[in-house]
Amino acid sequence: MNRVGIVGLGLMGGSLGLALKKLSKKYYILGYDHNKKHQKEAQELNLVDKIVPFQEIEKCDIIILTIPVDAIIETIKKLEGRVSPKTTIIDFGSSKAKISESIPKNLRKNVVTAHPMTGTEKFGPKASLDELYTNKIMVVCDIAKSGSIQKKIALELFKDIKSKVVFMDAKEHDRHAAFISHMPHAVSFSIANSVMKQEDAKNIVALAGGGFKSMSRIAKSSPSMWEDIFRQNRENLLEAIEAFQKELDMCKEMIEKNEWDKLHKWMSKANSLHDIL
Amino acid sequence: MNRVGIVGLGLMGGSLGLALKKLSKKYYILGYDHNKKHQKEAQELNLVDKIVPFQEIEKCDIIILTIPVDAIIETIKKLEGRVSPKTTIIDFGSSKAKISESIPKNLRKNVVTAHPMTGTEKFGPKASLDELYTNKIMVVCDIAKSGSIQKKIALELFKDIKSKVVFMDAKEHDRHAAFISHMPHAVSFSIANSVMKQEDAKNIVALAGGGFKSMSRIAKSSPSMWEDIFRQNRENLLEAIEAFQKELDMCKEMIEKNEWDKLHKWMSKANSLHDIL
Repeated sequence: MNRVGIVGLGLMGGSLGLALKKLSKKYYILGYDHNKKHQKEAQELNLVDKIVPFQEIEKCDIIILTIPVDAIIETIKKLEGRVSPKTTIIDFGSSKAKISESIPKNLRKNVVTAHPMTGTEKFGPKASLDELYTNKIMVVCDIAKSGSIQKKIALELFKDIKSKVVFMDAKEHDRHAAFISHMPHAVSFSIANSVMKQEDAKNIVALAGGGFKSMSRIAKSSPSMWEDIFRQNRENLLEAIEAFQKELDMCKEMIEKNEWDKLHKWMSKANSLHDIL
Repeated sequence: MNRVGIVGLGLMGGSLGLALKKLSKKYYILGYDHNKKHQKEAQELNLVDKIVPFQEIEKCDIIILTIPVDAIIETIKKLEGRVSPKTTIIDFGSSKAKISESIPKNLRKNVVTAHPMTGTEKFGPKASLDELYTNKIMVVCDIAKSGSIQKKIALELFKDIKSKVVFMDAKEHDRHAAFISHMPHAVSFSIANSVMKQEDAKNIVALAGGGFKSMSRIAKSSPSMWEDIFRQNRENLLEAIEAFQKELDMCKEMIEKNEWDKLHKWMSKANSLHDIL
């Protein structure tokens, strides 16, 4: 029986608890959250087998950090000298290079740094879904730096929750994540705010169809979580925002200049994204 | 029994046919599409009661134009002098001022100009859904210019397909639609193209989670349809794009200047959109 300690019982941690509870012969799940309200909710929702103090988490075979990226860096540092050489520490942060670089040397083999490409705009224990990880990509970064025991245990756990593993260099991950996730969040927050600033925002929003709902959905996301991600992946994010701005400038210019054939071709190119998605 | 003639059997027209077929005692539905392949598909999918030549549509009690906005303007002109004074012509165009202004004087009372705030990124007869209009907003513009018979008939039909009617001035509609629908489409096309231009686009897209899928979904939309909409609503669209660009510039500047508290507040403001959505 593996003792798993989940730190952070929000959407990601709570969903992980639910997924692992389906394998009750293999995993016993302890949970910790520094937020008392979240602890209570997680208990009521049965997201883990037992809520424990942080000291109990340190004794687990597998420790999984499902907390904001800045807190991941701090927590890993705090674990130095307090866990067994066999302990596997997994983090689910959305940016990876800063986390990977910050791990203390003595603890580097213990850690497997990963990013599940899944989530919803909701957060907190109540947002948990037992199939959040099912058939979703799990990006595992800098795996050569993890110990062989830790690698084996983490990959088995990812398989158990039905994730599809993709290996990647942490820096490459961060560049890709900026385009596929972080820039789109910046854009969604901007769409929401540009509409909210209109004099008749309420009347405008009253007309929202599916398109606007899609484009503003992730603007519901947690500002605390995204502030940290934007800070950690600042340079890549700025690059992705600039690439996006160039495209939108082109679009705007074609409209201004009444270049409709050119605009048509440009929109057809965008359509082709979906041949690969 | 009302004879309804639907011109254009794509997503909007096909879905309308399916919705009206549930009221077979009240409506008999004729369909026309200038695209032979669409005609055939509509027949096979039973979207309407009968496929007919355009000449038959002219004799209908209710004619509904579910075609691109430029084609709506042309078709209404073509109907001048060819329909009864009692005929109700309804158009479902996504921009309204240019259409409303272009209606020939002799035909103005016949026409009810409306915009259903619904749809998906898919197009063509096969995309049709019988509940596309259920509980969705139907914006009805410049209704004082329509005849009283036509107003009554159109509102009854909108009620029959379970739409929720909102009345609005065509110009006001176009300004709102630019923010709630047209600008978000320009943004989605730009996100898709900015990712497609990256050297390793395929690797990036392979990581797509729910956020990116939401933000790029409407970039699958028909370039022909959107070229027309962008042209007809050009000024409002440019204004909405500029409002959006200002917000994104602010976001980028806060990241560049490491103004994280300010960014946090700005994201929290975006969150509040969802109190009214």
